[in-house]
Amino acid sequence: MHEPGASARNVCRIPPRTGAAFRLPKGATLTVIDPQGEQVSDLVAFNADDIRERISSGRSIDYASRIFLTTDDILYSNRSRPMLTIVGDDVGRHDFSLTPCSRDTFRILYGDTDPHHGCQGNLEQALGPFGIAPDDIPVAFNVFMHVTVDGDTGEIAVLPPKSRAGDRIVFRAEMDLVVGLTACSAGQSNNFRFKPIDYVVGAAA
Amino acid sequence: MHEPGASARNVCRIPPRTGAAFRLPKGATLTVIDPQGEQVSDLVAFNADDIRERISSGRSIDYASRIFLTTDDILYSNRSRPMLTIVGDDVGRHDFSLTPCSRDTFRILYGDTDPHHGCQGNLEQALGPFGIAPDDIPVAFNVFMHVTVDGDTGEIAVLPPKSRAGDRIVFRAEMDLVVGLTACSAGQSNNFRFKPIDYVVGAAA
Repeated sequence: MHEPGASARNVCRIPPRTGAAFRLPKGATLTVIDPQGEQVSDLVAFNADDIRERISSGRSIDYASRIFLTTDDILYSNRSRPMLTIVGDDVGRHDFSLTPCSRDTFRILYGDTDPHHGCQGNLEQALGPFGIAPDDIPVAFNVFMHVTVDGDTGEIAVLPPKSRAGDRIVFRAEMDLVVGLTACSAGQSNNFRFKPIDYVVGAAA
Repeated sequence: MHEPGASARNVCRIPPRTGAAFRLPKGATLTVIDPQGEQVSDLVAFNADDIRERISSGRSIDYASRIFLTTDDILYSNRSRPMLTIVGDDVGRHDFSLTPCSRDTFRILYGDTDPHHGCQGNLEQALGPFGIAPDDIPVAFNVFMHVTVDGDTGEIAVLPPKSRAGDRIVFRAEMDLVVGLTACSAGQSNNFRFKPIDYVVGAAA
């Protein structure tokens, strides 16, 4: 991204308030880039050979003994197997406690009468061709999402992301995966400026 | 429980390190009791008419804007519909961030070479007859589990439950449910004294 030329041809852009899904082979890297700053990208992953295996916030948090994951942390599956390892992280603050924003999120939390279908709807559309049903979209790893937690009361708040233009996080696939990825549709998570997300798939070493 | 006699006949006991599953009709109450104090009970729930609908930590936390749920809070499904409402709570501290303890938990976190199958194994056995597969057991509502979170670092710690002998939490079913419930198998969550859990199903008002 930072050097125009050959490498730039491999960058995929997810337009504002949309999503994408793609295969990520074992050993390949996935770089998620915030091209303009202060944007969130919801990431979910499934075993490409058996889509009933999917990322699990509960297992990943338990094994890390930490709710905020960063470099060297592992996103585990619901079968306790490593799916993705974080191998680089410019930002260091992401969320792994909330489901993707959805028609219901906008209705229940914000009272929208004609709500956008959100990251949930975008992931449903993108993952459907891989045989993944809406009910099976789990708590997402919400890249760059800045959620604060009060350790005493448990209150959470969603703040603008800490990511600046060009900041990135890099994952390595630990098995053959189907990945779903969005440019977040929720105003609260990106300071009410809907922006794109870029990503790059790197070949296995 | 506190008055011997007719009401005591309705109390079901879950022996240490085991689990149970049962139907809970819409409108009925479920009281979960810690008979000896400092014990945890993992609770999961599924729509009895369509088991693909199940409790969702991510949606419940999002809609409550709080990671610690108590009286008047709602456990939502992955379809954003209310499944259970907490209508009474003697303890006020439960966890909704971790999956049930499992063979993998004991292996990865504690290095056990011959690990117990844990609450996950107990829930798999109890829920299997209802057609619920191991992969579909979600992050549990971990009744009485005392997990602290450092809001700065995100570090979590599992402390002995705050529940004393006889303490209880009461839920009301908002739809016809299949509920899975355990007497927790993890030493860390109950101060290394494995104890039973009691529960009472109350008829719909």
